[in-house]
Amino acid sequence: MSELKNDRLLRALLRQPVDTTPVWMMRQAGRYLPEYRETRKKAGDFLSLCKNPELACEVTLQPLARYPLDAAILFSDILTIPDAMGLGLYFGEGEGPRFERPVRRAADVEALGVPDPEMDLRYVMDAVRVIRRELNGRVPLIGFSGSPWTLATYMVEGGGTKNFARSKGLLFDQPEIMHALLAKLADAVTRYLNAQVAAGAQALMIFDTWGGVLTPHDYDAFSLAYMRRIVEGLTKEADGRRVPVILFTKGGAQWLGRMADSGCDALGVDWTITLADARRQVDDRVALQGNMDPCLLYASEARIREEVARILESYGKGPGHVFNLGHGIHPDIDPSRPAAMVDAVHELGRAYHD
Amino acid sequence: MSELKNDRLLRALLRQPVDTTPVWMMRQAGRYLPEYRETRKKAGDFLSLCKNPELACEVTLQPLARYPLDAAILFSDILTIPDAMGLGLYFGEGEGPRFERPVRRAADVEALGVPDPEMDLRYVMDAVRVIRRELNGRVPLIGFSGSPWTLATYMVEGGGTKNFARSKGLLFDQPEIMHALLAKLADAVTRYLNAQVAAGAQALMIFDTWGGVLTPHDYDAFSLAYMRRIVEGLTKEADGRRVPVILFTKGGAQWLGRMADSGCDALGVDWTITLADARRQVDDRVALQGNMDPCLLYASEARIREEVARILESYGKGPGHVFNLGHGIHPDIDPSRPAAMVDAVHELGRAYHD
Repeated sequence: MSELKNDRLLRALLRQPVDTTPVWMMRQAGRYLPEYRETRKKAGDFLSLCKNPELACEVTLQPLARYPLDAAILFSDILTIPDAMGLGLYFGEGEGPRFERPVRRAADVEALGVPDPEMDLRYVMDAVRVIRRELNGRVPLIGFSGSPWTLATYMVEGGGTKNFARSKGLLFDQPEIMHALLAKLADAVTRYLNAQVAAGAQALMIFDTWGGVLTPHDYDAFSLAYMRRIVEGLTKEADGRRVPVILFTKGGAQWLGRMADSGCDALGVDWTITLADARRQVDDRVALQGNMDPCLLYASEARIREEVARILESYGKGPGHVFNLGHGIHPDIDPSRPAAMVDAVHELGRAYHD
Repeated sequence: MSELKNDRLLRALLRQPVDTTPVWMMRQAGRYLPEYRETRKKAGDFLSLCKNPELACEVTLQPLARYPLDAAILFSDILTIPDAMGLGLYFGEGEGPRFERPVRRAADVEALGVPDPEMDLRYVMDAVRVIRRELNGRVPLIGFSGSPWTLATYMVEGGGTKNFARSKGLLFDQPEIMHALLAKLADAVTRYLNAQVAAGAQALMIFDTWGGVLTPHDYDAFSLAYMRRIVEGLTKEADGRRVPVILFTKGGAQWLGRMADSGCDALGVDWTITLADARRQVDDRVALQGNMDPCLLYASEARIREEVARILESYGKGPGHVFNLGHGIHPDIDPSRPAAMVDAVHELGRAYHD
């Protein structure tokens, strides 16, 4: 493996000194880039793109060619695990993800196998290997997975949902079935992430997209507990370096203190809390990643720069901040705007590091 | 006016002693009730139902016939004000609300007039009068409005939105235009709510549905500041009683402390925070309304009762709690379920009051 030339991200996630604040964007390989839309057309559809390691590598690298980002993130979908479990993932025209065979009863959960990543999700591992090779040490590669609770909502609902009727119905009325499903998913996610590390991922992120729709009590029991279990089971080192783990619960700003005790290295933070408040909540036990409102990228470059300055100042001096959006970049953003953000972070960030 | 027979709600909102915890449900007059769907069919469509005072009264009273609720809430839409400003509200088939003439530029804002409620929104005032007469003092009537920021998002986007591209774009890049719009809306909402009180509303609620999508800084400047201005301008008494005001920012659980300083009497609280924590945040300066996850109504009656007990215990002893869902009731809820919730609140609530 070639040596890592830019390790700002890995250092910042471990709260080690850096020259300036590192920056990347959630969903940085995505529809806002015309070159992404071209590659996706070539692939046919979204799932075919995910399942083609060469094309997945191509789109993973596209944003790096445009902006001096400090990380690449594996291009994939959060629903690869349930797909590999046999639920039959598909995307209808203009629809979100759907499953042909949702999970509803105890027998459905019992019937689920835990995928062997190198067998059942080989296309993901191959993508990691190809990307890592093509990156050639330029920046670290982040691997990822959906959280057990987030995967479970899609599996029980049979797709996306607004009301969480079936998934919360199951959680409230038959919590033992939900726990059995989550335990199996925690096992699957652990193996999946460890296989990504073995294939070359240098940092890991768990996306808990739907943890924020729970009560504090249910969040602890049905989402955070299983993320903690995963973190405990993860490979701690690769290539002689620690592999940092980031947890991100969308809408979880008020639970950062509890999340910081999960054993993870960093927390993703959306824009509904200032980084100063977030840092007080976690008391420097973990690094923080965030937290610009992605809608700022609709604004002028001057306004973007102003917001970058505000966020850097809110986190303040010292290591442990990875600049990012508080959510994925919107598909209708003008590709000229992220450049203003990335440049401002690198330039203004220097003042916060010795 | 006939004397109020059940004043639990008004007393609880003012933190005065009550015999048991009062309860009502956001969107209690709604699609989950077959009798509502019947009346709506009779009216033709949703807007026609809102604009017909007799039918609006009919649906307002329907949930009271089923459950021993402690309040009625005016049946109306949050977008009546922009409609009266001339934006042309309509609902496409299977779509959310849309405006024919969105507000985008400074000239659009300048052209907006502030509606005279008894002229331009007479159907709402007539509905309040009819409902108040038909209630005949059984329970108090809550009037309401959308918050300026919430109304502004719809007016600028031209309807509902997922990304808030145009409304946040305007806020970030041309804040002076957004402030001009919000100031006009604050004026319009104040007159509208005062007219509702003059027509018979006995408590008021401001729905800040989209305040929670802002950063803490922007929430203060673009949402809370204008709600504070409204609260300052509201009629304080009617029929010799104080008219309590409830603010509800969806997703605003972490800002309750600042909201409590707005001059309002009570805060609506969603389910992402325990009432114990919320009460600590507001330090008994205001009453709290909430906070059951509406998805609990998908669960069994035993589970609903258990959750009611948990929420009552979390708030604890003493006055100042109005039980409610943390969001509107979902349209696919079985109408037998709210009965279990309402009965449990009244029965178990007694233990928390002397």
